[in-house]
Amino acid sequence: MKKEKPVIEVLIVGDEILSNPDRDKNAQYLIDALLEAGFTVNFISYVGDIIPDIVRSFRLSVERSDIVLVTGGLGPTSDDVTVEAFAGAFGLNLMLDEEAMGWIEEVFRRRNRFMSDSNRKQAMIPEGSTPLRNEKGTAPGIFIEAKETDIYFMPGVPKEMNTMFNSIVLPRIAESYKTSPIDVATLNITGISESELYDRIGSIPGAKNAVKYYPGYEGITLKIITDESSPIDAASLREKIHDALGDLVYSTKSESLEQVVGRMLSEKGLTIAVAESCTGGLIAHKLTNIPGSSNYLVCSIVAYSNESKSRILGVNRELIKTHGAVSAEVAQAMSEGVRRISGADIGISATGIAGPGGGSEKKPVGLMFSGISSKDGTETKKLQFVEDRLINKSRMSQAVLDIVRDYLKKE
Amino acid sequence: MKKEKPVIEVLIVGDEILSNPDRDKNAQYLIDALLEAGFTVNFISYVGDIIPDIVRSFRLSVERSDIVLVTGGLGPTSDDVTVEAFAGAFGLNLMLDEEAMGWIEEVFRRRNRFMSDSNRKQAMIPEGSTPLRNEKGTAPGIFIEAKETDIYFMPGVPKEMNTMFNSIVLPRIAESYKTSPIDVATLNITGISESELYDRIGSIPGAKNAVKYYPGYEGITLKIITDESSPIDAASLREKIHDALGDLVYSTKSESLEQVVGRMLSEKGLTIAVAESCTGGLIAHKLTNIPGSSNYLVCSIVAYSNESKSRILGVNRELIKTHGAVSAEVAQAMSEGVRRISGADIGISATGIAGPGGGSEKKPVGLMFSGISSKDGTETKKLQFVEDRLINKSRMSQAVLDIVRDYLKKE
Repeated sequence: MKKEKPVIEVLIVGDEILSNPDRDKNAQYLIDALLEAGFTVNFISYVGDIIPDIVRSFRLSVERSDIVLVTGGLGPTSDDVTVEAFAGAFGLNLMLDEEAMGWIEEVFRRRNRFMSDSNRKQAMIPEGSTPLRNEKGTAPGIFIEAKETDIYFMPGVPKEMNTMFNSIVLPRIAESYKTSPIDVATLNITGISESELYDRIGSIPGAKNAVKYYPGYEGITLKIITDESSPIDAASLREKIHDALGDLVYSTKSESLEQVVGRMLSEKGLTIAVAESCTGGLIAHKLTNIPGSSNYLVCSIVAYSNESKSRILGVNRELIKTHGAVSAEVAQAMSEGVRRISGADIGISATGIAGPGGGSEKKPVGLMFSGISSKDGTETKKLQFVEDRLINKSRMSQAVLDIVRDYLKKE
Repeated sequence: MKKEKPVIEVLIVGDEILSNPDRDKNAQYLIDALLEAGFTVNFISYVGDIIPDIVRSFRLSVERSDIVLVTGGLGPTSDDVTVEAFAGAFGLNLMLDEEAMGWIEEVFRRRNRFMSDSNRKQAMIPEGSTPLRNEKGTAPGIFIEAKETDIYFMPGVPKEMNTMFNSIVLPRIAESYKTSPIDVATLNITGISESELYDRIGSIPGAKNAVKYYPGYEGITLKIITDESSPIDAASLREKIHDALGDLVYSTKSESLEQVVGRMLSEKGLTIAVAESCTGGLIAHKLTNIPGSSNYLVCSIVAYSNESKSRILGVNRELIKTHGAVSAEVAQAMSEGVRRISGADIGISATGIAGPGGGSEKKPVGLMFSGISSKDGTETKKLQFVEDRLINKSRMSQAVLDIVRDYLKKE
């Protein structure tokens, strides 16, 4: 019989990660993969390659958790002490495992490389444990039960860990423990603040408990997570939220806005050209992150100086003198100019004051204008942001892409 | 008398962070700030807003650590249960602290906003604890000693936490514990692999223990950390490493490459223009991330189609037909073209196959060419990358900026 919902802990071992946790991608990977499979993680811990610290971590982890997923410190060098520390914590001997040794030798044979003695260390596993095959590297994983806690050791290299987790570890967990089947649905939203969003969807039945907010500078991702006990399933709730938000939702498939815009351009067979001042190339960078974007992006002109706005985009010098480079008039002329010189169907532009310098009382930092020019004429939009330079660039690039999405929807 | 080197734990509380640890910036901030002050962190833990889980975490943390730095869960809503859970773990009553209450009332008065009853909850602190003033928000911090462990509760909002940590918490820690005065020196390097780098500097006396490697797609940052027991201080070791690596080092002050290039352009009073194909705007985006870049960046032309390479940059159509858009010849023509039309002192270019599509046996994915054109003529360089599209864009943008740095050094 399967056991009830387990308490799960992720334990990441390694000096490099402890001093730079931003670098770790394994914890996030495991959390997401477990969630998809119907499990939630209760604790994440990071510890360095220091034997007494790892020992203390293990002793505490087995007290509070049913499952401990350990990554890192299985390598061949003297820094890699995870298994040694574990054995020390529970008074276990390390023994050479013949099966694991065979796997390691095979990897070296396949790679045609010489196996050093230090690799033999990777086949030393605690008595009573089971080696787990590593399809993508040399370090075998290890499974052991300690004080009724299931402990899985996996390599720290993400590619190796991910494969081992999916092919061996997750199936074992799912075999022993009841999952609460979870439905997950996502919505990507831009152009609304978190508090406004909350006001608009908070009262939808079932939303309060099921919706998680992941706000960023360029929008908010909603994750809808439901299980058997939920009054509504994730897909139906997503539909209700989508209805309430309408066009603020740009994807229900975890796509980026540039993916969505790129897909719409491809479907309609339209091309686009960009004239960027304050976004400094970021709109083009985002668009070109999508494979196949050469089919619809003709060019982007990053016209950073007034001179280049006139010389390359053909913006009238008088217009700049009269209204200033940061104005609806210049945004309009930039979008029309880039459409004209590129021959693209759509021309878009961004001009503004990214900061920190360059602001005035009349035109403060964060003031930006966008233009969109097409066969239907040109429209401009005024935007006001308040953050620092990089955030302003990022928010504006997203706002301009959203203007394109808006145009393509009506087109 | 000050106590010896403490075992320090960072405990991050919050559902949103536990399900999305990539979002947390507090752990990294505390680690870096403590390191600068001469302390190292032994454990980082994440736990959700679940009272029994927080209770278990606290009980374990006080067993293994001398100092626990807690962030998150001090807000006014019902999700914020950190203090309640702590009090529960150690059987302490919560009491209304008049001083803390006064601080909160003052914040609301200053902001001219109505204080709700839920904010009163933020002034409830465990008996025997001391409130810590929050200069940037409403939630006061808390200090308490439990089982000889010093526990500091801080708000989860980074701005509030950072201020409270620096003005109150760190000075208290430094007062009670001996620091092992640490010297930290950094080096930013590009154009060499981690293993080559290791071969070149690994044998420098003192380097093995003092140097930490932070490799990324665009280069490697070295952090040199020394203390009293080190045979050499960080600054001297940095000098030795710098000598061994020469021009591979682009900064000894934690600057980005675009900062360095921007500074060199400013100092020399030179302007630059960019012609981008495969990097798709990323070079311009990086350059324009630096405040003041409008002084030296004239424009970037992201000429993504062959047509725009000819039409806007004036690259000869025959040249593209004969050699292909991905060739040294076209890279040269692009850099010369953008220099000509922009009037900039320096023209640089990038053309290549970013992937995943578009490769052939003769011209595989990752093949790229750069050109640099100036009063001294034009030079081109061939590069071969092997990663995916985004990584190729990122590596190439860095390589091109490094070519500019190289030119400016000689200039």
